[in-house]
Parts: sequence; structure tokens; C-alpha cells
Amino acid sequence: MESAEAEFKERFSLVGSNVKIFSGNAHPRLAYDICRYLDLPLGRSLASVFRNGETRIRIEETVRGKDVYIVQPICGRVNDSLVELLLMIDAVARASVKTITAIIPYYGYAKQEKKSMGREPIAAKLFANIYTIAGAGRIITVDLHSAAIQGFFDIPVDNLTFLPLLQNYFANKLENEEIVIVSPDAGGVARAKMFADNMRASLAIIFKRRNRPDHAEAIDFVGDVKGKTVVILDDMISTGGTLIEAAKLLKQHGAGKIYACATHPLLAGSAIKDIEESDIEEVVVADTVPIPIEAQRGKFIYLSVAPLIAEAIRRVHYNLSVSMLFDWRKKYETSSY
Amino acid sequence: MESAEAEFKERFSLVGSNVKIFSGNAHPRLAYDICRYLDLPLGRSLASVFRNGETRIRIEETVRGKDVYIVQPICGRVNDSLVELLLMIDAVARASVKTITAIIPYYGYAKQEKKSMGREPIAAKLFANIYTIAGAGRIITVDLHSAAIQGFFDIPVDNLTFLPLLQNYFANKLENEEIVIVSPDAGGVARAKMFADNMRASLAIIFKRRNRPDHAEAIDFVGDVKGKTVVILDDMISTGGTLIEAAKLLKQHGAGKIYACATHPLLAGSAIKDIEESDIEEVVVADTVPIPIEAQRGKFIYLSVAPLIAEAIRRVHYNLSVSMLFDWRKKYETSSY
Amino acid sequence: MESAEAEFKERFSLVGSNVKIFSGNAHPRLAYDICRYLDLPLGRSLASVFRNGETRIRIEETVRGKDVYIVQPICGRVNDSLVELLLMIDAVARASVKTITAIIPYYGYAKQEKKSMGREPIAAKLFANIYTIAGAGRIITVDLHSAAIQGFFDIPVDNLTFLPLLQNYFANKLENEEIVIVSPDAGGVARAKMFADNMRASLAIIFKRRNRPDHAEAIDFVGDVKGKTVVILDDMISTGGTLIEAAKLLKQHGAGKIYACATHPLLAGSAIKDIEESDIEEVVVADTVPIPIEAQRGKFIYLSVAPLIAEAIRRVHYNLSVSMLFDWRKKYETSSY
Amino acid sequence: MESAEAEFKERFSLVGSNVKIFSGNAHPRLAYDICRYLDLPLGRSLASVFRNGETRIRIEETVRGKDVYIVQPICGRVNDSLVELLLMIDAVARASVKTITAIIPYYGYAKQEKKSMGREPIAAKLFANIYTIAGAGRIITVDLHSAAIQGFFDIPVDNLTFLPLLQNYFANKLENEEIVIVSPDAGGVARAKMFADNMRASLAIIFKRRNRPDHAEAIDFVGDVKGKTVVILDDMISTGGTLIEAAKLLKQHGAGKIYACATHPLLAGSAIKDIEESDIEEVVVADTVPIPIEAQRGKFIYLSVAPLIAEAIRRVHYNLSVSMLFDWRKKYETSSY
Amino acid sequence: MESAEAEFKERFSLVGSNVKIFSGNAHPRLAYDICRYLDLPLGRSLASVFRNGETRIRIEETVRGKDVYIVQPICGRVNDSLVELLLMIDAVARASVKTITAIIPYYGYAKQEKKSMGREPIAAKLFANIYTIAGAGRIITVDLHSAAIQGFFDIPVDNLTFLPLLQNYFANKLENEEIVIVSPDAGGVARAKMFADNMRASLAIIFKRRNRPDHAEAIDFVGDVKGKTVVILDDMISTGGTLIEAAKLLKQHGAGKIYACATHPLLAGSAIKDIEESDIEEVVVADTVPIPIEAQRGKFIYLSVAPLIAEAIRRVHYNLSVSMLFDWRKKYETSSY
Amino acid sequence: MESAEAEFKERFSLVGSNVKIFSGNAHPRLAYDICRYLDLPLGRSLASVFRNGETRIRIEETVRGKDVYIVQPICGRVNDSLVELLLMIDAVARASVKTITAIIPYYGYAKQEKKSMGREPIAAKLFANIYTIAGAGRIITVDLHSAAIQGFFDIPVDNLTFLPLLQNYFANKLENEEIVIVSPDAGGVARAKMFADNMRASLAIIFKRRNRPDHAEAIDFVGDVKGKTVVILDDMISTGGTLIEAAKLLKQHGAGKIYACATHPLLAGSAIKDIEESDIEEVVVADTVPIPIEAQRGKFIYLSVAPLIAEAIRRVHYNLSVSMLFDWRKKYETSSY
Repeated sequence: MESAEAEFKERFSLVGSNVKIFSGNAHPRLAYDICRYLDLPLGRSLASVFRNGETRIRIEETVRGKDVYIVQPICGRVNDSLVELLLMIDAVARASVKTITAIIPYYGYAKQEKKSMGREPIAAKLFANIYTIAGAGRIITVDLHSAAIQGFFDIPVDNLTFLPLLQNYFANKLENEEIVIVSPDAGGVARAKMFADNMRASLAIIFKRRNRPDHAEAIDFVGDVKGKTVVILDDMISTGGTLIEAAKLLKQHGAGKIYACATHPLLAGSAIKDIEESDIEEVVVADTVPIPIEAQRGKFIYLSVAPLIAEAIRRVHYNLSVSMLFDWRKKYETSSY
Repeated sequence: MESAEAEFKERFSLVGSNVKIFSGNAHPRLAYDICRYLDLPLGRSLASVFRNGETRIRIEETVRGKDVYIVQPICGRVNDSLVELLLMIDAVARASVKTITAIIPYYGYAKQEKKSMGREPIAAKLFANIYTIAGAGRIITVDLHSAAIQGFFDIPVDNLTFLPLLQNYFANKLENEEIVIVSPDAGGVARAKMFADNMRASLAIIFKRRNRPDHAEAIDFVGDVKGKTVVILDDMISTGGTLIEAAKLLKQHGAGKIYACATHPLLAGSAIKDIEESDIEEVVVADTVPIPIEAQRGKFIYLSVAPLIAEAIRRVHYNLSVSMLFDWRKKYETSSY
Repeated sequence: MESAEAEFKERFSLVGSNVKIFSGNAHPRLAYDICRYLDLPLGRSLASVFRNGETRIRIEETVRGKDVYIVQPICGRVNDSLVELLLMIDAVARASVKTITAIIPYYGYAKQEKKSMGREPIAAKLFANIYTIAGAGRIITVDLHSAAIQGFFDIPVDNLTFLPLLQNYFANKLENEEIVIVSPDAGGVARAKMFADNMRASLAIIFKRRNRPDHAEAIDFVGDVKGKTVVILDDMISTGGTLIEAAKLLKQHGAGKIYACATHPLLAGSAIKDIEESDIEEVVVADTVPIPIEAQRGKFIYLSVAPLIAEAIRRVHYNLSVSMLFDWRKKYETSSY
Repeated sequence: MESAEAEFKERFSLVGSNVKIFSGNAHPRLAYDICRYLDLPLGRSLASVFRNGETRIRIEETVRGKDVYIVQPICGRVNDSLVELLLMIDAVARASVKTITAIIPYYGYAKQEKKSMGREPIAAKLFANIYTIAGAGRIITVDLHSAAIQGFFDIPVDNLTFLPLLQNYFANKLENEEIVIVSPDAGGVARAKMFADNMRASLAIIFKRRNRPDHAEAIDFVGDVKGKTVVILDDMISTGGTLIEAAKLLKQHGAGKIYACATHPLLAGSAIKDIEESDIEEVVVADTVPIPIEAQRGKFIYLSVAPLIAEAIRRVHYNLSVSMLFDWRKKYETSSY
Repeated sequence: MESAEAEFKERFSLVGSNVKIFSGNAHPRLAYDICRYLDLPLGRSLASVFRNGETRIRIEETVRGKDVYIVQPICGRVNDSLVELLLMIDAVARASVKTITAIIPYYGYAKQEKKSMGREPIAAKLFANIYTIAGAGRIITVDLHSAAIQGFFDIPVDNLTFLPLLQNYFANKLENEEIVIVSPDAGGVARAKMFADNMRASLAIIFKRRNRPDHAEAIDFVGDVKGKTVVILDDMISTGGTLIEAAKLLKQHGAGKIYACATHPLLAGSAIKDIEESDIEEVVVADTVPIPIEAQRGKFIYLSVAPLIAEAIRRVHYNLSVSMLFDWRKKYETSSY
Repeated sequence: MESAEAEFKERFSLVGSNVKIFSGNAHPRLAYDICRYLDLPLGRSLASVFRNGETRIRIEETVRGKDVYIVQPICGRVNDSLVELLLMIDAVARASVKTITAIIPYYGYAKQEKKSMGREPIAAKLFANIYTIAGAGRIITVDLHSAAIQGFFDIPVDNLTFLPLLQNYFANKLENEEIVIVSPDAGGVARAKMFADNMRASLAIIFKRRNRPDHAEAIDFVGDVKGKTVVILDDMISTGGTLIEAAKLLKQHGAGKIYACATHPLLAGSAIKDIEESDIEEVVVADTVPIPIEAQRGKFIYLSVAPLIAEAIRRVHYNLSVSMLFDWRKKYETSSY
């Protein structure tokens, strides 16, 4: 660690401040890592289940006048995570805290952010309203599926980004190779383009047609990958199907080594096994959701967002610019698993 | 069926009206029974799960300008039921319906209606706010755990009651017996007293001390049950522990036959088996939550609230008094399972 | 006073802080006692009446940036007290204060907290909404008639309790006697049970049937009081009728000495005279409402809640736990009249 | 009555409609007159007082789906009238009515519509917010003290005016006389000017300086009243002091006969006696507030606003223009007492 | 017109209904065309400017109980159009209308729908909040720049689409040609892909890098257009720079005939002249904003959205599915200029 | 400057505080003068126009945790000023500031504060709602056209007054002359009366009848101005027509020297030229709106409100009484142009 950064951390230490960080059951490891980075103890709280199936929340230390942060990605048993978060917000809101920030590293229901057909909910907006009515005064999140979700809120939203960490990683790893960034579907082209620009790489795009929910079928391809090293970029890996189909198609078009990366490794169904058996060399992801034990080896590489989120908390607390967080990003460590 | 009632039903038929009834996954049987009673088709809708675990809702017929009723007790996988209900409300709210009524026969989280210690949520209020913000314009429910929950809402709430059906049942069954109504805990005394008054029965009370959540221990008893027929009244049966302990205690005090009744048969854990093995003769409950197959025989008797809820819908639609519903209650059939 | 407490008070003194306490006309004595306890001057304000009958409010010292507390039980001319409170909140809200806390020691309209019949208001909820819309950011109250009223608010509510003071008093007074705690109606059983548990006393219950509003008729009794010292516990004394009827009934069942206690001594109509002429030895109450001169002697004993409320203010100000207030309750003085 | 109007009334009759008119205790006579004019029965409701001083409201007939109008000027025991109105609104709002209109013929607290000094409430705005939050969806009122109070509401406000009735009356009575309209203070000049224009009269103005609340002292005068008939116009008569001082001053300046008129006859203190003993010939007022028995003779003349309000209700119900109400105003009767 | 459609129009005619359509100054021609299509007169209203520069609105016919539609794209003097719309909504909201629908064919500020840097407004969300607070109860718009803007609203939004009309046009015009659909930037790929799929055409993409606001520079290209007929699809044409650069690049890559199309022809600066001088054969656009006289000839082809919007109004009024509007789209006429 | 005031300024300096002052494009000079008075730099921000005509806002320095003040009168291109202000509020609201105060020296749309006819907006209220929803937490303004507009807001409003500065100026200038204050219309009588009282001057009033908007015609006059020095007082000068007609009429009635003064010099149309050519000696106004170059000489005298507003900011920041600002008003300098 450089000394300028050490000084910065000492000057803006949160030790002894009124910051309190709590965790729901969705991802305690991440909350713990954030606290460790900041030299803070994790707040004591209970999130369990009554016999009738209702979620039970109890905050076990006084929070009057505190700046409370609750870490809870909306993943796993999605609705249980969501209700836990709501009840934790309600509990601290009724306990006269100073401010409440919901840290939602993976903003579940983000894909339901518009009506694709008539008579569907816009779940991402509904829950934005609900987090606010429950008492959240600020949201910290990472790589929202659609940036417009920020506008669903009337409270401040800090949408952190994992891309600089990915860029850093691949810039080192693939230093002298000719790289093509691949967007595995039409919706990710803008993200892939930005990534390619920053990596000084060229771009290719795969188009798919969704026939049924969750079942994507690659159908078309533009760009040139012949003999080149390819990095497929997506925002989340759900069943892995998109990624694996993309890799197959890229191989057919003559691609060299194929890497993949994404922010949110949901890894539903047989995703881990399927990816391990695929043509993909390596999959680099963040820890915005918990990582299953069977994916903590093999082709999966994890870069933690705990330092990123921790720095955001520090900067929010000291009223420093959060957008500046991305300028000196290479300077602080990113602990991998 | 008497002819006055037949005329009433014909005159105030909902067939051809703009009433649309939908069901979530929590209790489709009840929704179906309500529709059958009213000669209406159940609205077509989909409530499923995406591969990433998010609830998926789609309303599959046009609802513009309709008076929409959504039937969903908050039970089973409690949070899934809750989120399904919220997303269904959101979906129809965005589809330009005329009115939205959430029919929540069992209002989950009702026991979390006050702070018993500091730093707990008041979940029953939080979700009252949330149903409203999602777009519900009216609530129909049955036997709220605490009547004050009505006041948690600023929208109209019709709190129907199952007690007249119970009274009707026991008045027939135990016509010439000397009955004692028993409240199994201090919180239920007012309800038991009212029931006893209507039944012209006397009253006894069991006090318990809660040591741990969900684990009640009967400790004290006032009243006289020696040689009498006893009816234990509770609002819900969760693990059945309260009931079984009460029955034991009553036997020790010389009670004769012991009946039990309640509105909401949650029947968590080994409740069914434990009750079957207990001293209780018969347990009479409503179908505000789904009834497990193994409880559809043996000591359990079900009286359906479908007609009650159906009549409430009719009366809401035609702007008839819902409170009058309880005066002519003996006149309409109550289908049992 | 012990030295630990003196240290505590010095360390967390409000002298020199930005706390400002004002009083309406409902109970200036209590506001004065709270201020005296805290060594603070009572804020200067005017609450009078214009010739056209409208309430006139003027805050007579600057309150910009202050933490304002307004002490006003909703009693006496109930609606005048209520409107005074609303206008005082509005006046300070428009004067750029930092926070506004309404201290409502007796929360009037609390008994109208649910609809007992159709087409009644839920006044306790309506006024909860109204205090909030007027600008209150927190409520401090004492022994709410129903704990669920906390849930009527979306702002923090501190519901202080007078019971520990009562327990302290009777534990000393009746040290070696066998005590029975009596609930004079079904609605108070839970409160009486808790009190009896803490006093290690047994319990008896009187049931009444309300025929007309305010006119209660005792009708039934369970428990054993023969030869024992009895303490009747209620939350408020309105006309005293409930209490006197209870005492008569208890005498008929052979009770020994009869004490009574309650939090809120409304003492409407001929309550004072009737109680003086009754079989009750002593009535112990709080000063959450003003005490008429003719009740400041004879059988009435007052324990002041001024220290309790004052400590709550201190703890709110210094972000200390208010729920802890009840653990060390025996340590600080309770001034009686 | 002309036949065109009779046809109009028949075509747009409210008999058999879903309109329901209720009255609080502030002015049942006016509510009754409005109902009689419309051939409707007055809705059955109860507004009384519990023994603890709380207002008790009960709506005694079903109102589901009705368009409810509640008639209640904020006068007499001002705060009791206000709370009665709020609780009646709440009661019907929870009973699933279609719409709620508060008819507030005299909008109390209207003079507290701005901060004249720092740290005063803006009561007129606070209660505008409160009527709305309680559930009112529309306001009908008469001659608001300040027209800007309409803007305090975000719901529609129909501000009816009594001036055409006054103009009609004086145009007949003083047909051939030279009239001067007098504004008794600076705030009423605009109203007096408009009235003078319509009456083709000239104008004079009295200025006063308020030393104490409610105590006005006339100090200055511009205009020429020598030998002319004078009509003093005010919006309300509180203690009558302003009027009587004005009359004295006008006599000193050589005025002939002196008439006075106003919309709202509050008649506080000794107003009636003082006016009877003054130089004023006649005082013409509306019945927006109840008229004391001792003022129903002598110099006081009443013109009822019941027909005006009744027509407003009719027009609201049939979506006719309410502003047109003032164009054909001479055509319908105005019943005097 | 086919007879089925004629029957449909007759059955669901709006003539004689309570629908009232008004227009601000932004695009009266469109409002007039919508009215003409529906055989309704345009509502009389005034939108002018006071001498002090403030916008002046007056609705000149009664609207009580009406379903009011206000047609106003946010274009031209953008902020004047916006304020006109807000004041028109406010004026009708205060006049007791039944419902208010803002028809905003071009939703201005749509591109400011997310924060691209820190400390920028999210204007599209702010104005969504503001339209709602002003009183709009529903929005009808055409081809929102980002579909997520629907989620900015909590009121129903009907986002109509112009694409089927474009598809219809080009399907006829280019019946036997091999077509390539071109997205002129990364953000439009999803839209272009959908259009290409429906046209059974292939796809090409141009990437640009924005250096300064409004100044786009084409930099990269994927796909194959050699010898093929090309249709560039964008959602709006602002300065035309994007289009012209795209056309140049496509020519360099050997494209055949080049067509362009878009929904919203803003045509700022020298767009018309620049396009006329470019390699583009024809530009097909909608009339969601007014069309300058100099663009009503030459290469510009207009297809009116008046029938589309008119049908949406009809369907909203009769509670028919609006999403079904797109299934029978070929059946009704689209009047071109 | 007196030393007491210097001490005051030093003690309550804003240098080094978290106060940040920004300006829109409406009146940067005033914002700059306020900053200079307070020794603060003006905040860096951008308010420009995109090519499509939309307003573009960017705050160019970090504002996290700051107390932000935005200076923007609603004048010039009125709607552009208004939208700029809204977008600036939104931008800082999303950037996690501590508080937001909108300083609106001239509150545009203030004259549209009531409905003079049916179906007009109440623009002053609509925009009060909108400033609040956008995120403003406090308003500072000068001489609101109608004081009741304060009540349109539920957030604190400081309505500063320019009158003491005017009084100060004329008291010096016209020290030994006999002065008559003239209200040029009925609506301004109360203001003129107060001014006359403070100046120990007499009063005269001109009445006008408005035939068309903006076109006032003087028609009547009460008072005596023969041979006296006259000061016409208005709240704003729009076209100057009112003033010039008043001066003519006063000359006809024999007035001596004629001065005029007002707070807001809008000076629309040919106002400057017309006033220069009129009988008025001098026009004294504030700089609440920008002053055109051609009016910075000749008969126009400017007194700046920058010190007044700057002191208000200081007092808000240090929680000092703002109403006291008017007591020591003669003590601080008022810079003129």
C-alpha cells in the first residue's frame, strides 16, 4: 500500500465514528470483509425465521443517532433476502437512527425494469418505491443492470462499477495479446463498447433471440475474432447458457483463447458444471453475491468488491466525492478469494 | 337455499359485471371456490419463478377498467406469497384497472404488530404501507390477529369474522351441553369472552409465559371446567403447542370433552400429528390458508370462508353494507370440505 | 441520589444544549417539572384564544436549529388541547427548527383505535397521521391504551411505561402481604398478568359487559381473593365507575384491603367523590394529566412521570438507549406531589 | 319560481341520486335547509361527547358508494367543530364512500393565513392539509377571508360568494339613493371596490391601526360621504367593534343613513347589543354560521346561503359549471329567516 | 376502410362521450388531426404569454366530470412547452375533471434519463414526478428514448410505437430488395435488431464516440452492406449529424441505396439542409413534433401518428387493450402529409 | 461600518463553512454580489442549452454534505429560469447535499396565486409544490406579491422585505417635505398604509379597473395630494403603465414632485423609455431581477438586496433569528449600482 493512501485512510478512518454496518443473511461474508477493511466490528443483529415461516429481525445493539449501513444483495432465496432487508430497514428506522443506507451489491429484480409485454409488473421500480417507503435514505449498489434504475429512486443512488477492476485484471493478464471484446447479446453492446475502448480492443457482437424466458439461443454474429484472444463481457451469469453458446459460436468463427467476465455470478442450475466443461479458459467475476464452494476453484476467478464498497462508505461519511473513487482505483488493493 | 336469498343473489349477481378475481400461488383453491360461488371464471394469470429465483408475474387477460380482486393469504413460503401479491398488484395497477382489492384471508406478519422490545420492526405496519404504495385500494381480510391493524391502513379494510360460523357449528353440535369457552392465553380473553357471551357459555382462562419465541408454556388457570364440555378458542394454530398444553391442563382440572377451534390453521411442524394424538376431540378451523392433505381427515373439521368472502365482494361491488353480512349469516350455506 | 447517577447526569447534562421545551395549556405543571429536573428554563410561548374562539399560538423566542419538545397531554378540553398542540407544531415547523418531538403523556382518543361497529372513525390513527403531517418527527408518550398505536405512526414513538414505578411503590408498601392483582375488564388481562408476574402475585379477572358508552357493568369474576390484599390495575380512571364496581364485587368475594392504581387519572364527573366514598384504600396514579386540587389529598397518591420523561429527553438527545431506561429505574427519584 | 328554473330543477333533481348530506353539530339548521331545498333527507349521524371529553362520531346509515357532503362551519366552540368535521370525514372515508366533500360555509382560522410575525402558525394552511389528509376530496366554502386560501389546497375548492345576494338586496332597498360603499379597513378595499362598481356607487375607505388582537381603532378616512347613504361592507362581524367605530366616524363626516353588511356574523362578546345601540340602521348578513336567538330580530336581516350551497351541490353532482351559478343568481329565491 | 373496422369505430365512437381533447401551443396540428380522426371538436383553451413573460393558461369550456386529454410534445421552446403542459394540467385538475391524461408524443428530456457523470440531474425522472404532482393520472407517449422511463412513473404509461408503421412502409417500398438495417450507434442496437428481425433483414452497426455533447463522431463499423439497400434506424433526428456521418461511412463500405427513418424529427440547426445534400435517398419520420415547412417536401416522408394516438384514446376510454393496438395495425389508414 | 457589526460578521463568518452558493443564468450578478459580501467564491456550475433546446445543468464541484443555496429569480425567459432552477435542485439533491435552499428573489408566477375565473391554474401554488418535490428544503424570497404564498409551502419560507431600505432612502432624501404615499391600485392599499405609517406620511389611493390583462386603466382617486411630494409605491413595475397613469392623474390633482418605488423592476416592453418620458422624478427599485443596461442611468436608482439576502444566509446558517434582520437594518451598508 502506498503511503499517500495510508495517510488518506488514517485521516478518514471510520474507527470511532457513528457508522454501524449490519448484514442480513444473504451475504454475511461480504459484510464482514467490508468491516474488516474498515477496521469496524460488524453490527450485532439477528435475522431468523419464526415457526410460522415469517422472517424475524432483531437489531441487537443500540443504533440511536447512528449512520446505519445494511449489506444485503437480493439473491439466493430472493424474496427472503428482500423481506429481510425491508424489515431490517424498518427496525432501524423506528429506532431513531440518523441515516439509513441500503447496500444492495446485486440489485435483484433489475431485469424486470420495463414492461416487455402488457400487464407485467415493473418490479425494479416497485421495490425502489418500497425500499424508500421502508425508510432507506440512500442506496449503494454495483453495476445496475440498467443505469436508468437510478432514476427509479428519488433518494441518492451510488452505482459503483466493477469494470475498472476487470480492466485492471485483463490488462495485466493479456498484456501483449490482440484482444476482442464480445458482447453476448444486443443489450450489452454499449457496455462492451466502453470496455473495448478502455482496453484499446476491438469489438464483436452476438445476437440472440429469446424464445422462452431464461432460455437464450445465439443466432447471429458480427465482427472478426479469427485467431484473436476473446473476452466475453456480461453483467451477470445466470444459468451460464448465454456464455457457453457464445463460446461455441466464437470457436466456430475461429477465436483463440476465450475468457469471460461478469459482475454478478448468480450461477443458477448447472451453471458451474457447464462452464467447467466449456471452451472458456477462465471466468472472472465479483463477489456481489455469495460464491458457492464448488466454484471457488477451477476456472473461476473472484475479485472482491468489498474494498470498493468500503471506500464508498468512507467517502459518503466524509462527504468526499464518490465519483472520484474511479480515478485512483488502481491504487488500492483488491483482495481476491 | 331460501328463496329470499336466491332472489338477492340474482338481483345482485356479479355475472357480466366488471369484477375480475385473480389468485396467486398461495391458495388457488380458495380463489376458485370464491369464483364458483359467484359463478365467475377465475382470472387467468401466471405466477412462477425465473431461473434466478425472482418471482415472475403476468396477468394474462385484459383488465382495463376492471374491479380487480387478488386472493392471496400470506402463508406457506411467507415471503414468496407476499412478493407475489405485491407484484400482482403492481402489474394490474400499471394496466389501468378501476380498483384493486387485496383479499388477504390470513394477514401474515400480523403478530409482529408492536415492538415488544426495542429495535424490532413493526412488520404488520410496514406491509400495510407497502400494500398501499404498491397500489391496493382496499383490503379484505378475516379475523386480524389484532383489530388495531385496521388502523395501520389509510385505505378501507373489511375485517370479516369467522366466529359466527363457529358459533353456528357448536350451537348445533353441543346443543344441550353445558359449555365452557377457554382462552388459551391472556391475549385472547376479549375474543373468548365475546364468544362465550354469544354462546351463553361460561369462561375459563389459561395464562402462559413465553420463554422463547413460538414456545409457549401453560402455567396458570382460572375458572371452573369440572365435568363440563370445553371449547378452546384461538385465532390461529401454529405449532399446536398452545392447544395441546391447554388440553392437558384442562383434563387435569377435570374437564369433560374438549373441542378446539381457530380461524387460521397454519399447522406448522408436527402440529397435525400432535393434535391427532392429543386429548382434543375435534378441531374446527377455516380455510383461510391451504389445508394439508393429511389434515383433511381425522379430528379436523373445515368450514369454508369462500362464501363469506364471496358475499363481501358482492356487497362491496353493489355498495351494500358489509357489516350487515353478519346479521343474516345463518341463512347461506357454508360448504365444508 | 447515588454518585454514579450524579456523574451520569453531569456528563449528559442538557444545560447549554440546543434543547428547547415548550408547553401548551393542557398541563404546564408537568412541563415545568420536566424542565426543573433538567435544569432548563421552560420555553416562552403563548397559547390563548382570539375573540372569535380560534386558538392563538405564538412562540416567543427564537427556535432556529433547536431540538424542540412540546409537552401536551390531550386532556381537559380535549379538542382545544389537540388543536393547540397542532398549531404549536406548525409554528415551530415553519421556524426552521432542527427536530420536533411531541410529548403526549396521555394520548387522547387512544380508545378510538379500532372500528367496533361500521362507520366509525379510527380517531387514534387519524390524529397519528395529523401530528405527522403537522411536522412532528417523534412522539414520546406514556402507557398507550393499546401498544399497536405505535404502529399507527411511521415516525419513532417512545412509549414509556409507568408500571415499574407502581411496582416499586407497592413492593415497598405491601412487602409481606399476599397480593392478588385484579384486572377490572377483559381488555386489561395481559397488562395485569405482566404486573402480577413482576410482583410475584396471583391474578383475578373481572368481566364486564358494556351496555352503553362509558357505562360499565361488572358481571363476572374468576380467581380467588378471599382474605387477600388486592390491587386493581387499570390504564386510566375515567368516571371511576369500573373501579368502584370492581371494589364492591371484590368485597363480596371476601377480599381484604383493596388498592387501586392506574396511569392516567382523568377523573371525570363525580369520580373523585365516588372513589373517596368507596371501599378502596388508596389510589395510586401518575401525573400524565393535571390533577384537580380536590384530588391532591385523601385517598389519592401521585407519582410523577416528570423524571421519567426528562430522562427520555436526555437519552434521545444523547442517542442513548431509551429502552434501557427501564432497567435502572429504581435508581432515580420519583417526586410525588 | 319561473318555469325554466323549475324545469332545470326537475331535470337535475338529486332525489334518488347517491348524494348523502350529513351535518355536524356546528350548524344543523343550515344543513337541514340545504336538504329541504333539494328534497333530500338529512343523513342520520351522531356527533356527541364521551365522558372523557373526546368527540364521538357515528354515521348511522350505510354510505358505501355514496357522494357524501358534510356541512360544518368552523365556528362556535371552534376546535370542537373542527375535530367533529375531521372525525366525520375519517368515518366516511373508512366506509368506502365514492367522494367526500366538506362544506365549510365559514372557513375558521382563515385570518391566520400568513405569518404576521415570526414563529406563528399558518393555521389556515395547516388545516387545509389536515382536511385533505383526513380524506376530503373537495371543499365548498363561502367568501374565504383571503382568496389565496384556495391555493392552500391541492383538491378542488368552490369558493361561493354571498355578494350578489347583498347587491340584489340593496339594489332593491336603496333604489333611488346615492350610495357610498365603505371599506372599514385597508384589507377590504378590493372587495369594497368590486361591490361599489357593481352597485354603481362611489367608495370611501377607513384605515385602522391594530394595537392589540381583536381590538381595532379607526384612525383615518378618505372619501366623501356627506349627506349620502352609506353601506359598510366587511367579510365578517366578530365583536362588531370595527363596524361601530366606522359608523361613528362616518357620522362625524356627515354621512346620512348607515347600513352595514357582511357574510359571516360571528357576533362575539356583546356584538349584538352594541350594534343594536349604534347608529347603524340595519345589518344584512348570511347564515353561514348559526344565528343567535337574540339577533333574529331588531336591526339584523338574514339572507340564507342554503339555496346557494344547494345549487352548488346539484351542479357538482351533474358536472355543471359552478362558476355559472353567479350569472342567473337573481332567478332563484333566497329564503330569509 | 374495411367494414369490420368501420363497425368497430361506430360501436366504440367517442362522439357524445365525456372525452375532451385540448392542445397546448407545441403542436396544435397533431391535436387537430387526432380530433378529426375521432370526429370530436378540439377543446377551446388559451395558452398565451403575459407581458411579464409568464405563461397564461385558460380553459374556455366547462370540464367538470370530463375525461380530459392534453396533447403537448415537449419540443420547440422546450421549457415553454413543458410549463404550458403543467399549467394546463393544473387548471383542469382544479376544475373537477374525472381523469387527466397527458399525451406527450415526444417526451422531451428523455435523453437525460441517467447520470452519466456525478452531479447531473435525472431530468426525465424529475419531470415524471412533476407531471404526476401536477395532476396527470395517465401518460400516453410514443417511442420513449429508453423504455425504462415507463418505470419513472407510478401512474399508467402507454408507450405507443411507430415501428410497425415504418415496417409497413418499407415492406411495401423495398419489397424485393435485400435489406440491411443499420443502427447508427451502440445504444440503438436492440431496437435495430428487433426491426431487422421483423423485416427479415440483416443487421449492421456503427459505433461512435461522443467527444462533446451533441457532437457525435462515427468511428467504427461491423457488418456487411456491400451492394445492399440500407435502412438506418434511429429514435430521433436532432442535428442530423449522426445520420449523415453514418451514410458517408456506409457508402465507403459499398452500400447501395441508403434510406433513413426515425420517430421524432427534431431537425435542429441545419439538419434539413444537411440531409437534403447528403447521400440519403429518403427520410421517413413521424409527426410527433411539428414539421417545419421547409421539410414538408424533398427527401422527407411523414407518416402521421394521429390515428395511432386517436385509437389509443378510444381504447383507453372503452377499456380495450392498448397492447392489442399493434396486432391489427395494418388495417387502419395512416394519413401522410 | 460600525465595530459591533464588524465583530458580528467576524464571529459569524461563513468562510470555511460548508455553505455553497450557486447561480443559474437568470441573475448571476446578484449571486456574485451575495458571495462577495460573504467573502465566499461562487460555486462552479454550468447551465446551458443542448442543441435540441433542452436545458443542461451540471454542478462542477463536489457538494456532498454541503448546505447549498441556489440563486435564481424567475424572470427573463421565465420558463427557462424556472426549469434551470428545478434541474439545479434535482442535480444537487441527487448528490447527497445536506440542505437545499432556493433563493428566489423575484418569485415569478406570484400574480397567478388565485383563480380569478373558473378553469385557471393557480400557478404560484403549483410551482410551490414543484420546488418542494424537486428537493428544495427552504425558500428565501423578497416581497412576495401576496403574503399568503408563504402558506403555499410546507417548508420554511423566509419572505424578506425591501421596504425598510426604501424607507431609509426616502427618509433621508425627503427629510423635511410633506409626503403622501400613493397606492396605485386597490390591491396595494395595505402595503402603502404600512409604509405611510412608518414614514409618518399621509395616504392616497388610485383605483383602476382592469379591462384586459396587463392593460390597467386608472379610474378613480381618493385622498389629497395638492402641493405635496408624492411617493407611489408598488410591488413590481411590469410595463410601467400603472405608474405612468398614476403620475398623470396625480399631476391633475395638483401633486408636487412625484417619486415612485417598487421592489421588482421587470421593466417589460417600453417601460424604461416611457418612464423616462413621464412626470416621475425618480424610480427607486431593488435588484431582485437583472437591471437592463439602459436603465442603469437616468431616473432609475437601484438599492441592492445582496446584503439583505447575504445576511439571511448567514443567519439561517447560524440559526439566528431572520426576523430580527429588520430591526438593525439601518446599520449595514446597502450597495447601490
